[in-house]
Amino acid sequence: MPDKARSPNPRQTSRPNPPVLDSAALDAETGATDYPQPFRAQVAGRHRAALGDPLGLTNFGVNLTRLAPGASSALRHWHSRQDEFVYVVEGELTLVTDAGETLLTPGMCAGFPAGVADGHRLVNRSGRPASYLEVGDRSAGDEIDYSDEDMVWRDGAYHHRDGTPW
Amino acid sequence: MPDKARSPNPRQTSRPNPPVLDSAALDAETGATDYPQPFRAQVAGRHRAALGDPLGLTNFGVNLTRLAPGASSALRHWHSRQDEFVYVVEGELTLVTDAGETLLTPGMCAGFPAGVADGHRLVNRSGRPASYLEVGDRSAGDEIDYSDEDMVWRDGAYHHRDGTPW
Repeated sequence: MPDKARSPNPRQTSRPNPPVLDSAALDAETGATDYPQPFRAQVAGRHRAALGDPLGLTNFGVNLTRLAPGASSALRHWHSRQDEFVYVVEGELTLVTDAGETLLTPGMCAGFPAGVADGHRLVNRSGRPASYLEVGDRSAGDEIDYSDEDMVWRDGAYHHRDGTPW
Repeated sequence: MPDKARSPNPRQTSRPNPPVLDSAALDAETGATDYPQPFRAQVAGRHRAALGDPLGLTNFGVNLTRLAPGASSALRHWHSRQDEFVYVVEGELTLVTDAGETLLTPGMCAGFPAGVADGHRLVNRSGRPASYLEVGDRSAGDEIDYSDEDMVWRDGAYHHRDGTPW
C-alpha cells in the first residue's frame, strides 16, 4: 500500500452476507492521507474504496483506488516487510521505479516484494481517470523508505532520514 | 485460494524489471489440481495464471483464474488461518456459500476471512468463459475444511474427516 492512509486495524463492521461487494457501487474515500503537509498535493486526486476491510479480511488489505489526471498513488517508496501488488482496472497509469517509467493499461499488473530497495509509485499522466486494485499484506514491523524525499516511516511515524520527526 | 494447486513455495525465477506483467499475455496453467481423483472433474476447465509468484511476491499469492462453462473454482471450502479475496474480471460467476447462490459480474468481489466456517466456491453456470483475480495469504499452519465432502486438509495432506488419509 502506498502510505499509511490504509488502516492497519480494519473496522470491525459487520460483514455482508453473502460476503460480496460491488466495487462500482462503493463511495471512495476522498483524498485521505497522513503524509506531512509538504507532500499532500502529490496525492490529491487519489480516492480509495476499501474492499478487503468491509469483507472482514485482516491478513491483507485490498483497495480499489482511482487517480484523477495528475494524481499519484503515493510518494515513491518501498516496504521492508510487506509485499504490494497492483492490477490496473481502467485507464492508463505510469509506473515509476529505478528502471524508469512504464505505461500500464487494463489487465497489466506490477508487484513490489518486501525488502527490494527500488521505490515505486503510479502516476496518472493521462487526461482521464484511472483505477487499479492494490493489495498489501500486514506483516508486523514494517518500515518504509521514500526514494525521492528526506523521509522514512519508522515505529509508526514519519521521520527525516536523520531520525528527527516530521 | 481454492486448493493446494497453488504452490506455497513460489518459484525463485528472476523478476521482470520493471516489475510488470500483462495478465492477458500469460499462458494459464491447465487444470492443475492435487485433489483426490473423485473430485478432479469439478475443477476441470479451471485455468490459472500466477501473477504474484513471477513478480517475486511471497507473503500472498495472486492468480488470474479462468473458468470454462461448467467449471468450478474449487470444492466448497473454508480456511482456518488464511484470508481469501476474489474480484471478477470478465464474465459471470455464481458464488455458492451457506447463504445460497449469488451472481457475480465484473467489478464485484467477495472475501472469505480465515476461520469463518462458511464454505465457498465459484461456479461458472454461464455459457462463456469467466475470469477472476484470487488473492490468498500464506499464513502458516493453515487447515481447510470442505463443506460438502468427507474431506479436510490437515498437516499438508488430504484426509477423511475421521483422520484416515485420502
